[in-house]
Amino acid sequence: SGKNWADTMKVRGYMQIRSNPIIGGDKQIAHQADRSIGDNTNFMIRRMRLIFFGDIGERLSYYIQPDFASRTGSSDNTGNIAQLRDAYGDIYLTKDRVHRLRVGQSKIPYSFENLQSSQNRIALDRNDALNSCCKDERDLGVFYYYTPKEQQDMFKYLVDSGLKGSGNYGMFAFGAYNGTGANRSENNDNLHLVSRFTYPVKFENGQIFEAGIQAISGTFKPSTSSSNAPVLDSGKDGFKDQRVGVHAVLYPQPFGLQTEWNWGRGPSLNDAGTRIEEKSLNGGYIQAMYRIKDFYGYGVLIPFVKWQYFDGAQKFETNAPQNHVNDWEAGFEWQPVPEIEFTAYYSKLDRNNLSSDARSANYPKYNTDILRFQLQYNF
Amino acid sequence: SGKNWADTMKVRGYMQIRSNPIIGGDKQIAHQADRSIGDNTNFMIRRMRLIFFGDIGERLSYYIQPDFASRTGSSDNTGNIAQLRDAYGDIYLTKDRVHRLRVGQSKIPYSFENLQSSQNRIALDRNDALNSCCKDERDLGVFYYYTPKEQQDMFKYLVDSGLKGSGNYGMFAFGAYNGTGANRSENNDNLHLVSRFTYPVKFENGQIFEAGIQAISGTFKPSTSSSNAPVLDSGKDGFKDQRVGVHAVLYPQPFGLQTEWNWGRGPSLNDAGTRIEEKSLNGGYIQAMYRIKDFYGYGVLIPFVKWQYFDGAQKFETNAPQNHVNDWEAGFEWQPVPEIEFTAYYSKLDRNNLSSDARSANYPKYNTDILRFQLQYNF
Amino acid sequence: SGKNWADTMKVRGYMQIRSNPIIGGDKQIAHQADRSIGDNTNFMIRRMRLIFFGDIGERLSYYIQPDFASRTGSSDNTGNIAQLRDAYGDIYLTKDRVHRLRVGQSKIPYSFENLQSSQNRIALDRNDALNSCCKDERDLGVFYYYTPKEQQDMFKYLVDSGLKGSGNYGMFAFGAYNGTGANRSENNDNLHLVSRFTYPVKFENGQIFEAGIQAISGTFKPSTSSSNAPVLDSGKDGFKDQRVGVHAVLYPQPFGLQTEWNWGRGPSLNDAGTRIEEKSLNGGYIQAMYRIKDFYGYGVLIPFVKWQYFDGAQKFETNAPQNHVNDWEAGFEWQPVPEIEFTAYYSKLDRNNLSSDARSANYPKYNTDILRFQLQYNF
Repeated sequence: SGKNWADTMKVRGYMQIRSNPIIGGDKQIAHQADRSIGDNTNFMIRRMRLIFFGDIGERLSYYIQPDFASRTGSSDNTGNIAQLRDAYGDIYLTKDRVHRLRVGQSKIPYSFENLQSSQNRIALDRNDALNSCCKDERDLGVFYYYTPKEQQDMFKYLVDSGLKGSGNYGMFAFGAYNGTGANRSENNDNLHLVSRFTYPVKFENGQIFEAGIQAISGTFKPSTSSSNAPVLDSGKDGFKDQRVGVHAVLYPQPFGLQTEWNWGRGPSLNDAGTRIEEKSLNGGYIQAMYRIKDFYGYGVLIPFVKWQYFDGAQKFETNAPQNHVNDWEAGFEWQPVPEIEFTAYYSKLDRNNLSSDARSANYPKYNTDILRFQLQYNF
Repeated sequence: SGKNWADTMKVRGYMQIRSNPIIGGDKQIAHQADRSIGDNTNFMIRRMRLIFFGDIGERLSYYIQPDFASRTGSSDNTGNIAQLRDAYGDIYLTKDRVHRLRVGQSKIPYSFENLQSSQNRIALDRNDALNSCCKDERDLGVFYYYTPKEQQDMFKYLVDSGLKGSGNYGMFAFGAYNGTGANRSENNDNLHLVSRFTYPVKFENGQIFEAGIQAISGTFKPSTSSSNAPVLDSGKDGFKDQRVGVHAVLYPQPFGLQTEWNWGRGPSLNDAGTRIEEKSLNGGYIQAMYRIKDFYGYGVLIPFVKWQYFDGAQKFETNAPQNHVNDWEAGFEWQPVPEIEFTAYYSKLDRNNLSSDARSANYPKYNTDILRFQLQYNF
Repeated sequence: SGKNWADTMKVRGYMQIRSNPIIGGDKQIAHQADRSIGDNTNFMIRRMRLIFFGDIGERLSYYIQPDFASRTGSSDNTGNIAQLRDAYGDIYLTKDRVHRLRVGQSKIPYSFENLQSSQNRIALDRNDALNSCCKDERDLGVFYYYTPKEQQDMFKYLVDSGLKGSGNYGMFAFGAYNGTGANRSENNDNLHLVSRFTYPVKFENGQIFEAGIQAISGTFKPSTSSSNAPVLDSGKDGFKDQRVGVHAVLYPQPFGLQTEWNWGRGPSLNDAGTRIEEKSLNGGYIQAMYRIKDFYGYGVLIPFVKWQYFDGAQKFETNAPQNHVNDWEAGFEWQPVPEIEFTAYYSKLDRNNLSSDARSANYPKYNTDILRFQLQYNF
């Protein structure tokens, strides 16, 4: 019976190789989103994804995406291990795919940038303010998506056309999930809840605009280091973990703007570094871009500039340390052919060092200028 | 040369997502077969399998099955890592496939339920009595299988028809393997030996019955915990590890019965928890099921009830703790379409907590009522 | 868009299962290239590779090769994990593929035997003298390859014909890479540089001969054990790491000869085991083989004999211990059909035990006779 099933499976992939030289400022730095930012680093494979996907019958689509560039803390200190990112099925409640349940590990429908694939994002890393909601943007649970036919076509167009849309995560979404992050076991008896509404509209001049709102609510229990651990100022099941966010995107036809902001409360190391408490957080970003569809016959070029701000704690990092981010980025993404992308930009980092090495210094701030280079293959 | 080889390869897969709420009894529980049984748990990916397989020429079939939901004890405590289950070739000694050698990591031909795929099994976990023979049902070695043409067709029919057969592990099997379990290095100079005979017959009314016998013999060296480790009461190469089992299956056309029992000797922690000794073991299960091929137009429904018993030690767990199992399960498996399966049942657990946390309390017994839910995708 | 990409992807694989019984000499042995050499070992999966590869357009080829038989030092001591070997793209600077850039993790163009696939090599392990340049033969970086059309055809023929060529790593190669070994993070601010020139020629009688030269230069920082660690006699960024090597291959038509030698300097534990210093190294091998294309109607048989010598340190092993190798091997590889290979030979090992267990005895020498068996599937 293998043959018939196999005929329905498709495979594709993408890969990102990076290098991030420091050109000024503090050298003792670390960035939780990219291990190749820091002193004594060079080339790194940031993502190496294979995606096995397909439709079976009229009721099921499946999507299995391991990342072959994962690290899991092996004792021989090697990386590039295969670990799941997505692994889910879409069960179509109606055959027109307007109503569906997504069960498995998948992206949590919170934040436009979280949902947009890294394959399509211009900046190399997501903003901290909204991305800190969800480890690897994903979790394990059950999600309901409502997408009318018209929006199905719109979401598909926004990706296929190269406009860097988010893909179809519903016009309306509601879900319940463990809340401990992708590939992590549940550690309390509370599920997280999420809901999102987004609406893309096409203006008379043909340009597309999308805006929406989303919220998360749950209880989160941070992990603490084994030595010099802060006290957890909460009950057994953890801390209140609540956020609300808004997003607005003017798609780059050719000029585009993208912005998001969110506010919330969650676990946070206190200023003295002695105790984890419930604290407020807020932050977001704004990005401007200009899409040159034909760069003198050498493919697509997209210059961009991005500013991001975050004042809150990174609950998924050990000890839930505070992060105060005020970063600038400016540069371009260049696609000479659709299968090859090269990104280069300048980034001014102003944020905290959240590495375990920095625990003894209470996660100090740093101010550093770096260049960022990425080569991406799409296949 | 890649192209021609590639044309022969097929890919298929399946995935299981579980949740097992506790509805009564002790809460400090653990089950070596399912990490999502216990307090403070919820959704879990139990299996996420991709299978790469095919035939090359007239002499070789290959079968590579990684599980992308494995855990390997990483220091960052994440799971959903890719680790091998099957990886073997079948070398056909005769082109009619009656005589073949299977070399590689594969299921040990011991017990009907071990050989039946988890994709096809109704109950979420295998019985402890026979499953405790073999870690992940598999090991690395050389196996000879004898399957006359008629039985080749029969074994294939019993899977393809949805009757939940075991697949073709030979009418007669004989093998030699490391004996340390799947993905584990050999740790003594003894190979384990296994042999099995099974015979399916079709009654005049068309119902199929299968019965058989199997045995294992080897020497096993358990692992012990680094602190408070029990004394190993044996020589360097380990303990005698011997079992004999019988199985009988009346396939569900529509009513079915399935039963197995085995007896043996092997390493076991003593009652005081101070010493590992050679001890006897026995146990098995009986399961009744009823296959409704067309459930009011909503696919296939199979109600079932299962009782299992085990009085012995789990040699593959650290310190080889004793397990005294007396479990009941009752519920159903429902396949609305072939690619989606949903299983729901009540389970009354009466067994020992074998987790390392329970070592200090000498692996106490627990008595707990749980519900079990599983969603399975076949693709 | 998945479908079109997927149509271009090909998949193939190979698998090696080994057993290496000790037949004489010291029993307390270990070999860094094969964990199944030693006391209390038996069957082992040495390699289980799947290769996902293809061309997209006229400018990109990609090659993704995870090994599903990797170990990463998991705390539950299991192996057979998926970890990357190759993951790169070839960007064609010219559409005739004469000039290309290979960016990603790939083999370092140093040594003929390193570049020859393990799928094609006769001896089960590579020689230590040249293989010690590069962990898993691979690293992450940027490599330029120059291969005129004629040599493209030649390199392809030498693999496709079964003559056990190296594949196309350029007539001329130049590259820059991290230098820490495959799947390991960069740990200093120096890139390694490599260059290679090789030239295959066809004699008048049709036999093909290839010879060339290669060199590596960089700075390497070895890892040390946490307890009883030797002192590192160098600056923060590590030790000078330089080598030059020569190779010559007379392809087996039917008689073949293959030899390589290299000389260099690099980090090495001193004789007392107290300090890591910069020391010289040298070594190589010579192998004779005879290719019987039709062995009495039972496929291809290649008897061979190989001698190898190494006097230097293994920089990638913890503490960079010295290894003094003087090994002999003699036996055969037999391919009854192209998809099944069986290798059997006698090996006389005379080398140092580099395992961490042997640190306390200062990595003593051993002298042991073993038999080596391998079954390989190609699919």
